[in-house]
Amino acid sequence: MKRLVLLRHGQSEWNAAGRFTGWVDVMLTPQGREEAVQAGRLLRAAGIHVRQAFTSVLTRAIETLNLALLEMGLSWIPVQKDWRLNERHYGLLQGMGKQAAAEEYGAEQVRLWRRSYDAVPPVLQPDLARHQHGDARYHHVPPWRLPTAESLADTLVRVRSCWLETLAPVLLRRGDLFVVAHGNSLRALLMLLRGLSPQEVESLNVPTGIPLLVETDDSLQFRGQRYLADAIRVESALAAAERGQG
Amino acid sequence: MKRLVLLRHGQSEWNAAGRFTGWVDVMLTPQGREEAVQAGRLLRAAGIHVRQAFTSVLTRAIETLNLALLEMGLSWIPVQKDWRLNERHYGLLQGMGKQAAAEEYGAEQVRLWRRSYDAVPPVLQPDLARHQHGDARYHHVPPWRLPTAESLADTLVRVRSCWLETLAPVLLRRGDLFVVAHGNSLRALLMLLRGLSPQEVESLNVPTGIPLLVETDDSLQFRGQRYLADAIRVESALAAAERGQG
Repeated sequence: MKRLVLLRHGQSEWNAAGRFTGWVDVMLTPQGREEAVQAGRLLRAAGIHVRQAFTSVLTRAIETLNLALLEMGLSWIPVQKDWRLNERHYGLLQGMGKQAAAEEYGAEQVRLWRRSYDAVPPVLQPDLARHQHGDARYHHVPPWRLPTAESLADTLVRVRSCWLETLAPVLLRRGDLFVVAHGNSLRALLMLLRGLSPQEVESLNVPTGIPLLVETDDSLQFRGQRYLADAIRVESALAAAERGQG
Repeated sequence: MKRLVLLRHGQSEWNAAGRFTGWVDVMLTPQGREEAVQAGRLLRAAGIHVRQAFTSVLTRAIETLNLALLEMGLSWIPVQKDWRLNERHYGLLQGMGKQAAAEEYGAEQVRLWRRSYDAVPPVLQPDLARHQHGDARYHHVPPWRLPTAESLADTLVRVRSCWLETLAPVLLRRGDLFVVAHGNSLRALLMLLRGLSPQEVESLNVPTGIPLLVETDDSLQFRGQRYLADAIRVESALAAAERGQG
């Protein structure tokens, strides 16, 4: 039996402001930090001892991981940061208010970009793309791998490469991994772990701040999953995720 | 030119209580956290862009690093945790109040254990040593390498192995490292970097919360060092370190 704990970071400044975020490195709000601390407490209360952790290169996920590990007394475990666990790249929508986007492109188009499996939002202009490529955190990534806008299907491609090359080998060898990431990179990872179809993933939501324990057999076949919180808390967090996804 | 930024963690709960700490994993106090945030601000103000960070496996150093990196906007850089950067192991003194130790062993003996280069405090009893060896953070370390009490000279042996095998190769390849550690592991590292004698290191103090920038040439020969804070702040932090070392 192998165990994998997935955690979506809590509220960020742009979640709170209703703006598309994607790869923009916005900070957690105080509420987001509190969600991270609570997640750590839930994991400690459940007696979960993760051995190694993975997160994206975006500060809101890294800070969530650090706060949760501190609460679990596990700050000393190895942590690896991988750009392939980043949030879905929202292209030109990044920084735009969700309301403003609906006015500019139409509510139905925006709904499609947010919820459908393969709709790609408008890509970044070349100058913004160059600016992103100049960010030191991506210096080791070949430019052709860096997106300028992604569908969930595009996100899945890089999450799959992270899963196959990095997460799965460590899970096989060590067991008990902790992955702290974003709504859409976690949806993609769950699609891989559970073998979901594109239709199934479209209606899949990942709540913020509630650890999801996924169990697989020793050949990494999915065996089951459960949230490490009581049913009422999970239900309200899922409803919030349904409203705010992306 | 290669640059190395050294930072000693801020006040811990046992620093505040005047107890010997060593390898016991005590938490930072709110003041200690504030020192870490301030250190991050000093580094950001000085325009220092570290590329990779190293710390011990003790939470007070890791949390200091995390808080400083957050303030610098560099949470995403690779971080490696290495037991060889741990504080000096204080053996049986760990957990004991400094006053109580002076009453039990005599003030002069305690002064020697704290300040001399090669005095070794009383070793841990076998049951405490077994307990320490059972700590998961040391599972990958051969038991014969784990100390039960150390002189500064003993600390130097493991810090040297960390320097030669881990820090120096990365410094040569990438430059601009950040090392967040403890009073005595940093004294040992400075002894190596600056080629200090045992006599010189006995009077060397490292202040908490003030980043020390060390510059070497491309073959890692020491070229100079400076604290990234104004002289008054450095002076008062050095005086506090002089009083509280160990």
